[in-house]
Amino acid sequence: MATLQDICYSAAINLLSAIAFLFAFAMLRLQPVNDRVYFPKWYLKGIRGSPTHHGGFMKKFVNLDPRTYIRFLNWMPAALQMPEPELIEHAGLDSVVYIRIYLMGLKIFVPITLLAWAVLVPVNMTGGTLDKIKDLTYSDIDKLSISNIAENSVRFWAHAIMSYVFTFWSFYVIYHEYKAVANMRLQFLAAESRRADHFTVLVRNVPADPDESVTDHVEHFFRVNHPEHYLLHQVVYNANKLADVVEAKKAMRNWLTYYQNKYDRNPSTRPTTKTGLWGIIGTTVDAIEYYESEIENLIKEEELEREKVLSDANAVMPAAFVSFKSRWAAAVCAQTQQSSNPTMWLTERAPEPRDVYWSNLAIPYVEHTIRKFLMAVALFFLTFFFVIPIAFVQSLATIEGIEKVFPFLKHLIEVDSVKSIVQGFLPGIALKIFLIVLPTILMLMAKIEGFHSLSSLDRRAASKYHLFLLVNVFLGSIITGTALEQLKTFMKQSASEIPQTIGVSIPMRATFFITYIMVDGWSGIAAEVLRLVPLIIFHLKNTFLVKTEQDREQAMDPGSISFPISEPRIQLYFMLGFVYAAVTPLLLPFILVFFAFAYVIFRHQIINVYDQKYESGAGYWPDVHRRLIIGQMIAQMLLMGLLNTKGAEELSPFLIPLPILTMWFHKLCKGRFESAFVKFPLQEAMVRDTLERATDPNLNLRTYLHDAYIHPVFKHDPSDKTETMIYYDEEDNPLVATKRSSKFVSDVSSGSGS
Amino acid sequence: MATLQDICYSAAINLLSAIAFLFAFAMLRLQPVNDRVYFPKWYLKGIRGSPTHHGGFMKKFVNLDPRTYIRFLNWMPAALQMPEPELIEHAGLDSVVYIRIYLMGLKIFVPITLLAWAVLVPVNMTGGTLDKIKDLTYSDIDKLSISNIAENSVRFWAHAIMSYVFTFWSFYVIYHEYKAVANMRLQFLAAESRRADHFTVLVRNVPADPDESVTDHVEHFFRVNHPEHYLLHQVVYNANKLADVVEAKKAMRNWLTYYQNKYDRNPSTRPTTKTGLWGIIGTTVDAIEYYESEIENLIKEEELEREKVLSDANAVMPAAFVSFKSRWAAAVCAQTQQSSNPTMWLTERAPEPRDVYWSNLAIPYVEHTIRKFLMAVALFFLTFFFVIPIAFVQSLATIEGIEKVFPFLKHLIEVDSVKSIVQGFLPGIALKIFLIVLPTILMLMAKIEGFHSLSSLDRRAASKYHLFLLVNVFLGSIITGTALEQLKTFMKQSASEIPQTIGVSIPMRATFFITYIMVDGWSGIAAEVLRLVPLIIFHLKNTFLVKTEQDREQAMDPGSISFPISEPRIQLYFMLGFVYAAVTPLLLPFILVFFAFAYVIFRHQIINVYDQKYESGAGYWPDVHRRLIIGQMIAQMLLMGLLNTKGAEELSPFLIPLPILTMWFHKLCKGRFESAFVKFPLQEAMVRDTLERATDPNLNLRTYLHDAYIHPVFKHDPSDKTETMIYYDEEDNPLVATKRSSKFVSDVSSGSGS
Repeated sequence: MATLQDICYSAAINLLSAIAFLFAFAMLRLQPVNDRVYFPKWYLKGIRGSPTHHGGFMKKFVNLDPRTYIRFLNWMPAALQMPEPELIEHAGLDSVVYIRIYLMGLKIFVPITLLAWAVLVPVNMTGGTLDKIKDLTYSDIDKLSISNIAENSVRFWAHAIMSYVFTFWSFYVIYHEYKAVANMRLQFLAAESRRADHFTVLVRNVPADPDESVTDHVEHFFRVNHPEHYLLHQVVYNANKLADVVEAKKAMRNWLTYYQNKYDRNPSTRPTTKTGLWGIIGTTVDAIEYYESEIENLIKEEELEREKVLSDANAVMPAAFVSFKSRWAAAVCAQTQQSSNPTMWLTERAPEPRDVYWSNLAIPYVEHTIRKFLMAVALFFLTFFFVIPIAFVQSLATIEGIEKVFPFLKHLIEVDSVKSIVQGFLPGIALKIFLIVLPTILMLMAKIEGFHSLSSLDRRAASKYHLFLLVNVFLGSIITGTALEQLKTFMKQSASEIPQTIGVSIPMRATFFITYIMVDGWSGIAAEVLRLVPLIIFHLKNTFLVKTEQDREQAMDPGSISFPISEPRIQLYFMLGFVYAAVTPLLLPFILVFFAFAYVIFRHQIINVYDQKYESGAGYWPDVHRRLIIGQMIAQMLLMGLLNTKGAEELSPFLIPLPILTMWFHKLCKGRFESAFVKFPLQEAMVRDTLERATDPNLNLRTYLHDAYIHPVFKHDPSDKTETMIYYDEEDNPLVATKRSSKFVSDVSSGSGS
Repeated sequence: MATLQDICYSAAINLLSAIAFLFAFAMLRLQPVNDRVYFPKWYLKGIRGSPTHHGGFMKKFVNLDPRTYIRFLNWMPAALQMPEPELIEHAGLDSVVYIRIYLMGLKIFVPITLLAWAVLVPVNMTGGTLDKIKDLTYSDIDKLSISNIAENSVRFWAHAIMSYVFTFWSFYVIYHEYKAVANMRLQFLAAESRRADHFTVLVRNVPADPDESVTDHVEHFFRVNHPEHYLLHQVVYNANKLADVVEAKKAMRNWLTYYQNKYDRNPSTRPTTKTGLWGIIGTTVDAIEYYESEIENLIKEEELEREKVLSDANAVMPAAFVSFKSRWAAAVCAQTQQSSNPTMWLTERAPEPRDVYWSNLAIPYVEHTIRKFLMAVALFFLTFFFVIPIAFVQSLATIEGIEKVFPFLKHLIEVDSVKSIVQGFLPGIALKIFLIVLPTILMLMAKIEGFHSLSSLDRRAASKYHLFLLVNVFLGSIITGTALEQLKTFMKQSASEIPQTIGVSIPMRATFFITYIMVDGWSGIAAEVLRLVPLIIFHLKNTFLVKTEQDREQAMDPGSISFPISEPRIQLYFMLGFVYAAVTPLLLPFILVFFAFAYVIFRHQIINVYDQKYESGAGYWPDVHRRLIIGQMIAQMLLMGLLNTKGAEELSPFLIPLPILTMWFHKLCKGRFESAFVKFPLQEAMVRDTLERATDPNLNLRTYLHDAYIHPVFKHDPSDKTETMIYYDEEDNPLVATKRSSKFVSDVSSGSGS
């Protein structure tokens, strides 16, 4: 087992690597050439137009001012300066509440750490059990942990009581945080300027009607059932294929630009390419001409597809965005059941236009349940049996395996140096690749389940990832062996034995988790700020594709908080904190450093870098809350199991109320706050409607909502000069000829009625 | 173990006792004097005015026509004749759907029984294991059951496959039944005449406002947030004490009538009574004078209390019934969230006026969650630990225990005959009393939890009773030993061992359950039709209290289906059917007889006897469905456990999908149908509003809803001549003087506004 010195050594290494990352970041961010990598948020806001340093040619790319290098951690206090209200306006509520999770970590664990060190560390240190056992190897860390206390000792009461104190303190912080976030959300929604989704409801599963088109059916239904409130609606087109064509065209444009740039720089030779896969195989052709003709074809195809979508009745999905005359009416429609068949005319608050995940809008109800069921089964197998295919791949990825499948490689890999690389590297690579693509797999599963907004997809993927981390990282590290083996063990054990089996190994794994926190937490977060991948990609794009300032704008990749990956990881730290607070308090300061460090870094990132794809108004908080509760309950169960194996069974009745109380606390919070994240209260809606009528009596809501929910491929793309604007003036649009397609925007003027 | 002959013998006894009950019923119902006991429904409907047989004095009480006695089972076909739509109109949807549960039992189990006898009985009979074991006692029943099959036999595949067939057939019936009930409910709601609860919403947790009274606050809130729809509201008074006084007055009146009747019949001596407890102790007084003065006092007290309630601001609870101008608006308000604080201004569909449980309307949100939590803990202890106090009482209820506590009884109970009675009778009596009062305890727990309609109280009590029966009757009979011991056993066993432990004893307990079905099911149902307790009480009342025809009307006790007791019992039979279908098919015909018999009896009862206290429109069906699913899942788990112990582990992977599929089926049904029982779809509401506007354009809804939701003690009781009508004409009501109390009916004319 690792000693205190080992831990210090490891901490030093990880601190140094973190500092190295920070130093590299501090150097790179000062170079004007990297300005768009490290400050894209300001460019998108239009505040920063060009690198801050003017001067000679050289100065445009490299910062030669030595004074700016001296205080290389200057950005840290700067990141903390922006006050929260301003930050919400700058970065949106999603981001601000996200960094509050780290802050909440500090709020929960700073007092817990102080208390644990003041009470439990002395109790453990003077336990003196390990000193007596001379022949057992133990470390100084174990002397500070619960392992140092003799069986049946009365000292365990200290741990049990402190476990109550920790739980109640967490309740206090979690409750107030939930309350604060709920209030922030309501304030944010109230302070927001007018948004299309306030007035709009997403209607799914419009029943098929043999006599009417979807758009007529929707209009009639809402005219009848919300007679004084219905304003207009927009049907949803199945434009997935069209979107693919547009995407392909965009890629072709990039290649064209690349070759044109190449030709401009070196006009002596016209660049060539090959027509096959990735330009590697196939016949060689003149690149510029080839891509120009390809783009030509795609434009034609796009036109055809566009017309097909607009004229084909089957391209209209049984879903629509229905807009109302007031926020009140939209809130009413979203919260009520429309039809006596609860699987038809499903209404819900429309997601923000940019939050809509268009391809999933047409899934019927029963298919939805089947998909969810299948994905639940898939997640179970993914979580518990993912090692099986990986072990299979690993068994292939041996020297012998490769020789068998690819005999022609035999001579190459028999070379000693190659052989050693293959042997050392290959077995781990399958697992590594799996872990890297895992979030993508989980997101794909969420998409298959059929959620129809990016925010709900993110939340769903996060839930899945949390389960995976819980089973495979947390439990998998405590009980050595695969999840599959654990599952077998647990099936054979009784309900009261499982926490004991896990609990007894917890103190032994403390050093492992301390190292994990330093490697994954400290260094990982420091790497985040460096943005190495976007840095490289930006410079590649900048070199090969950028011609105009506008192109450079597009080459920027500000990125965003990857909620489905980061949030479950934070939850892992919370859980480690809860579990080890009463067992090995030594671990707590490492978590504190993580929370504090991550808070500063992410605050800097949301100020200067990230540009969120959507704004859900912290709609994910109920998930965060639920996972905190799960972490607490696991910690409580494991402590009970651990104390049982230590011969302190008499403490069990004292500890049993703890998880029950936690469950009840969860229900209380859920009932008290959750609906603020699900429903839009009528009182708020009415206040805002009244206010708006007073301040803006001449508002033409119809014009405002007219094309709010059009599939992005139908939207006018300012960078694409060839696309025609087909939708603005319906009256004199020459493209819209047939009766069907004249309904494209599905806006029926209220004067004419139906 | 019981042989087939034993079972036949027991069946004969139970059949005879059932026939005896039926015969007694047939005789008693033909006597005109019992007419109001066996046909109260028709009296309440006003169709039956007086006994059907006219003639001499004797003929008024006894039916002397011998022809009517001959066909004593005549009522059975009569009970089956009334078609369902007419029955719904006659008895309400709650009753009709209730008897459909029995019918569903037949639909599920008739095909299952046929299949099980056609397939499984031959498979079991030819198993021949029991024949080989010569020294083991076994019965013919065991030869027909799964016990007759050798370990590791391939014959178990038949049971596993049939288990799938049974499950899918149940799914089919349950799904279509849910669909049919949901449609019946929607039709019923649509066909109903105008009802106050269609237009009304129950608002709870009205926040306190220092500047406004509750009634003003409610009015302002709904005027602002539902401006075009709000009509009027009625606040809720805490009139519990007043109700007590009225109740006491009614009891005194009964005594007064009793003594007056006594005096009328025997005018020579004036009856006397004693002033103390139950008229047994205290000073002797003239009974008629005493009760007259007591009633006088109570009338004064009532007046005082009534005025106090109306004038005291604290007597107004923070709850109100808010009525709207249309069903649409009421449906909208009930389904939406009003305030940004989701624990304030809670709205829900108002229960029917007679369904309201008034005393629970004022419980605040947090208290609600605490009460629920405490009752959940209480239910757990009641279910698993109820034997402890009973064992304690039993230990006292011995000869020695009684001698210790009541030494003066020593000489009496030392007498041999008394001693044997005490010894034979006392130990069981504590348990019997507990089982009799259990439904009352569970109902009390539901009331403490704070539900505010009688229908939800019934449903909640039924859930609790179902759990109790499941643990203490079903599991308790399979695994001998108390629930507490079971709990200990299960805590020490693994998740996969528990079904094995239970499963292995299932075939052995088949004969016990067959006897149980005959005693509790057959004879119990036959006793239900006899109505012995209401019969006795009616005749007592008729003799001592009845003076006028109106009094006789009041002496009738039609009773109602006791949903919280009967429904969980049906579920027990369903579960027995599911569990034994694949194990001991011999049990199935007994269940079929129960379902068929109970269907006829209850159909007769709802036609001729029961008068439901409220009409919830079959709102309990989701509970019925959920419990069916629970029964199926338990059956599937136990079969898996049983097959495991029989060495057929290779069948486990084949059977594991079964409970998962069942869970998914439950979710599907829930999503598909449940909301029909929870929400009122806007489309339906709109159709009915439109229809009403067309058919009844001059309807004054204000007058109609004016006093719909007044606490029953404020309602005019036609039998009570002394009560003043204080609420009808508010304008010229002399009792309503103060500003506060003028708000009593809380009806604000819409013309004046606010």
